[in-house]
Amino acid sequence: MIATACSQRPASPRTKSLLSPADFQLVQEGFRAGLSAQPALERHLRGVIHDTLSHPGSLARAQLAFSLLKALGFDAAIARDVGVAIEYYHTASLLFDDLPCMDNASTRRGHACPHTVHGESAAILGALSLITKAYALLWPALNHLPAERRTATSALVEECLGLHGILNGQAYDLHYGESGKTEQDVLRIARGKTVTLIRLTLLLPALMRGADTTSLKLLEQLAEHWGLAYQILDDFKDGLLNEAESGKTVDRDALLNRPNLPKAMGAPAALNALDRHLGQARAAIERLQRRLPRMAALDRLQWMMEQDRDEVMVRLQAVPRATTPAPA
Amino acid sequence: MIATACSQRPASPRTKSLLSPADFQLVQEGFRAGLSAQPALERHLRGVIHDTLSHPGSLARAQLAFSLLKALGFDAAIARDVGVAIEYYHTASLLFDDLPCMDNASTRRGHACPHTVHGESAAILGALSLITKAYALLWPALNHLPAERRTATSALVEECLGLHGILNGQAYDLHYGESGKTEQDVLRIARGKTVTLIRLTLLLPALMRGADTTSLKLLEQLAEHWGLAYQILDDFKDGLLNEAESGKTVDRDALLNRPNLPKAMGAPAALNALDRHLGQARAAIERLQRRLPRMAALDRLQWMMEQDRDEVMVRLQAVPRATTPAPA
Repeated sequence: MIATACSQRPASPRTKSLLSPADFQLVQEGFRAGLSAQPALERHLRGVIHDTLSHPGSLARAQLAFSLLKALGFDAAIARDVGVAIEYYHTASLLFDDLPCMDNASTRRGHACPHTVHGESAAILGALSLITKAYALLWPALNHLPAERRTATSALVEECLGLHGILNGQAYDLHYGESGKTEQDVLRIARGKTVTLIRLTLLLPALMRGADTTSLKLLEQLAEHWGLAYQILDDFKDGLLNEAESGKTVDRDALLNRPNLPKAMGAPAALNALDRHLGQARAAIERLQRRLPRMAALDRLQWMMEQDRDEVMVRLQAVPRATTPAPA
Repeated sequence: MIATACSQRPASPRTKSLLSPADFQLVQEGFRAGLSAQPALERHLRGVIHDTLSHPGSLARAQLAFSLLKALGFDAAIARDVGVAIEYYHTASLLFDDLPCMDNASTRRGHACPHTVHGESAAILGALSLITKAYALLWPALNHLPAERRTATSALVEECLGLHGILNGQAYDLHYGESGKTEQDVLRIARGKTVTLIRLTLLLPALMRGADTTSLKLLEQLAEHWGLAYQILDDFKDGLLNEAESGKTVDRDALLNRPNLPKAMGAPAALNALDRHLGQARAAIERLQRRLPRMAALDRLQWMMEQDRDEVMVRLQAVPRATTPAPA
């Protein structure tokens, strides 16, 4: 397991890219070009679009979807459009999350949140423009697929992004504590608000290709374990990093009474859960790569999450910094 | 012209329905059943969904799209889904419009706005769930069309609902006066925020059927004239009706410094423009009905708008109440 993973690790351990420089540039350009801050736009709305396109973040979801679609044999243009569409949904969710009525954050990606500069209404309209453009990118990309795959993919989008997906997860997150504060409640919220978008990123390419049931099941498992591992890491970081390090307003969970897995489970149990989820994710990736070869991006992202885990461990001063993967 | 219109008028002059009772029920049930306020939903979000589905309004856009699709030979189920999808977009736009950072309204359709009861974040998440469901309804309804019609319809949706459509119109509406207060500025805003959704309602059915260029051009004209006539009527009503009559918070334009055509043009010029747009709408309908027969809903909606115009005239005490259609 370790040998396989090591052989596919990227050359530079610090790179955050899952793609070759040329492919990463293609995805970046797609993100910037999908919408444009034209002079015809009202100036507050134009400001939100400009700022949002100027600070794309890591584009992790776009890179992952792009990479999977390329590995599954899709054109680079289709892979880019689907990747950018998913990234636009994610970016819209951040614009909404940061609003005063939600997390009331002031900083994101090292810059002032657009609503603090251009106003709340412009931030909302900007987020909606990302969502409509996401559908406008996705629709033509799915248009050439057989009818049953178009049906399956559109159902997945609604399942992940609709009322019973990320929206209900976000609602429970915002009203955490009103209906329970157990570990199970926190896990349910993480599944709703975090696993859903990772699930969309992993499953949409597979459904577009018509992947077999076993591969889809393994991708579901991977989404679950990555999503929960990511949430535990994010919850640890919320309390460990300062604003300069994380690029966003921190320590929100305690301040806003939001769910936080290390706080709900206790740090040692959360670290155990993190390592369990990372181990199960790695096992799912190994099985997937026997069925869907050339998916190097899965290994890379897994490795990045393990690096993140090691950094959290250093911060917690619980263990010395590890350079080998976390035990499964 | 008058004879054609009269022969297709509905039996009761007070009815607001464009459809037979059975068809209207189908559309109403589609609106109520498209989303469901299940117990698994977080309770604030569930409250928004419940209230929104309980107060559907006139469902004018859903009825119009349904009626056109049926006249063009589509199944009732597809006509219902497309109609409900457009109505969900419209309803979402109202939930956003009423937020404190936009129109800060407290009443809509005779009931408290959901954000005043269940909170702003729940209203936003509820509106987003209407949008994602709208796409989820639209997508399968378009799925059986030939590829080029799927492309044309999805492009229309982005044109009308995206950044350069209703969203930019709404942004200019909210920041009215910052870049001009001329009649042209007010008209541009009305085109952006009002014509776009009527345009979607009229053109989507026609593009689904692959209508000819002349018919599409006539529908574009109808959307423009109906949209502007509707906006003039709505602007008159904002200053003329009280909250009990309109069912929503009134006199917002003056209070919030929003564009208002009668105020920008003067009431007599606005009435002239209203009659001109209604006359040109009627002319477009006459020409359309020679190309696309059985579109009785167009005549009915035209008649309703003329009734609305007469009521506004009575209010203004400018002319006695007319029972015949406005002159072309």
